[in-house]
Amino acid sequence: MKTNDILIIDGLQYVNWTRPLLEEAKSGGVNIIHVTIAYWENCKEVLENIGEWQLRFQNYSDLIMPIRNASDIITAKKKEKIGIILGFQNCSPIENDLQLVELMHTLGVRIMQLSYNNQSLLATGCYEDNDSGITRFGKEVIKEMNRVGMIIDMSHSAEESTLQAIEYSTRPIAITHANPASFHPAIRNKSDKVLRLLGESGGMLGVSLYPFHLKNGSECSLKDFCDMIYTTAELIGINHIGIGSDLCQNWDYSTLEWMRSGKWASAPDFGEGASDNLSWPSQPTWFKCSLDFNNILEGLSESGFDDNDIQKIMGLNWLKFFEHSFVAA
Amino acid sequence: MKTNDILIIDGLQYVNWTRPLLEEAKSGGVNIIHVTIAYWENCKEVLENIGEWQLRFQNYSDLIMPIRNASDIITAKKKEKIGIILGFQNCSPIENDLQLVELMHTLGVRIMQLSYNNQSLLATGCYEDNDSGITRFGKEVIKEMNRVGMIIDMSHSAEESTLQAIEYSTRPIAITHANPASFHPAIRNKSDKVLRLLGESGGMLGVSLYPFHLKNGSECSLKDFCDMIYTTAELIGINHIGIGSDLCQNWDYSTLEWMRSGKWASAPDFGEGASDNLSWPSQPTWFKCSLDFNNILEGLSESGFDDNDIQKIMGLNWLKFFEHSFVAA
Repeated sequence: MKTNDILIIDGLQYVNWTRPLLEEAKSGGVNIIHVTIAYWENCKEVLENIGEWQLRFQNYSDLIMPIRNASDIITAKKKEKIGIILGFQNCSPIENDLQLVELMHTLGVRIMQLSYNNQSLLATGCYEDNDSGITRFGKEVIKEMNRVGMIIDMSHSAEESTLQAIEYSTRPIAITHANPASFHPAIRNKSDKVLRLLGESGGMLGVSLYPFHLKNGSECSLKDFCDMIYTTAELIGINHIGIGSDLCQNWDYSTLEWMRSGKWASAPDFGEGASDNLSWPSQPTWFKCSLDFNNILEGLSESGFDDNDIQKIMGLNWLKFFEHSFVAA
Repeated sequence: MKTNDILIIDGLQYVNWTRPLLEEAKSGGVNIIHVTIAYWENCKEVLENIGEWQLRFQNYSDLIMPIRNASDIITAKKKEKIGIILGFQNCSPIENDLQLVELMHTLGVRIMQLSYNNQSLLATGCYEDNDSGITRFGKEVIKEMNRVGMIIDMSHSAEESTLQAIEYSTRPIAITHANPASFHPAIRNKSDKVLRLLGESGGMLGVSLYPFHLKNGSECSLKDFCDMIYTTAELIGINHIGIGSDLCQNWDYSTLEWMRSGKWASAPDFGEGASDNLSWPSQPTWFKCSLDFNNILEGLSESGFDDNDIQKIMGLNWLKFFEHSFVAA
């Protein structure tokens, strides 16, 4: 089984896109990518980022197309174009205006995290000392996201907030890019409790290849990674796992600093990194870029998954999830 | 002792200002008013509100002047103009940008609440179910407000957040408009614990005349109100009490709905009110508007305060507090 034979959906990438990088993703067999267009941006700033994607859809129309509903995914695969799903890693773009949820959905945004590392107006982020759960406004936004068909993503949120999001949402939610904390005890990774409830409620976990989420970091072995997927499938069910590589490409360090510190910190916040290591972490040798999805396929096979399961993990689970998630209630 | 003989500072009013209302305030002997220019506004929206005040300072220059430091208060009293202090009841105008604190200070803003009823990016509001205290960004903003000389106001914040604000701030903070919960158990009123620590740390409480903060609401007697001030002075010290009337004038109900529900609620949030009472609450007969400060003077005297204490409560305490608060660290 080869990457080009199957549907590959990446639950999150953050890439400074150029034509060569889009071509690389296409060569690697990636069909659909959820791209990040907001970390700390307000409404006006995110509209500019959506505008940039409008331009890309024009300029690279031979290579990419926007994904607005699940049938677009089939179209993209057929037309051999990469389908792009727009998403926010924070709720800052909706500011404190409930109506901006539907407005952003109309503009093509399909996934939104309720908080990014810090406390937001909706939920607590994973790096806060205390976690007060979903706020009053958060409950309103969850209802509205459920109504219009925007996926709730809790990748960077804190434990109690995540549990409450699963509880309050009438639709399954996603953790688009994270690993089990039992695999690697990063604050960003998720407890077995969260993952079990995520699976039970029909939600999706995108397993991450970002070195800070991996056992042994950049030195993580392909076998350890794929064995982790196997264990996680036993925990939450094979139908609830996809890839969310968190692949970051073509950014300099200032972008990483922006992601971590935004404009909120007086001194750099090093997040998962450290002050003596001011650079992007190195990717594992077996997953340096989108050309390496074939290695994941091999690894999954060696860890004991059959072709059917591998296809689910690589894309079919996300497809099924999106089929239910992108339509209005 | 008459209102015109002493300095009167009102720690908060929310009025839809017209020339007649400014003249009324002047006739009532009010020298300084802290006015609200933000509940839910973002940065751009609040700049428009500051712009409106710029225009008022031009159009009503015979009646009002901006207060940027404590010496302006003396000037305003001498020139018989009402001094206006600009303040935010929420932190929404600084969005998630630490630099906007100094910028707003440069534009004349001297007081900011860290949260308004709901969870904010800085602190929890009093109507949330859970209170996680001061956030990571909140700690940064407190440091910055301390540095530039902007007063931290916790009038609409939750208990633990307020206690932490007192703890983290290197300068005394204010609760510009609220009463003790022991006087009237509204969620918005403050526990004795908060009030005691506020006083011990050199902070200020502005006692409120908003009916929902009063024992027996609109029927509250002048004696009960002034006796409450006496008891509160025993609890937190006579030097830490001022007036924060929370006088609201000349707004229709839609403004009250905006204050409560902003753009965050899908259905009206009734806050301190109720669905069967869709109007502004009636003021007590003895404090209908700024002309009635003379009644407060009489009431305070009858509750046992001497002239010296009354002058402190009516304005000198706020003056002393502002002398220390409005200067850069």
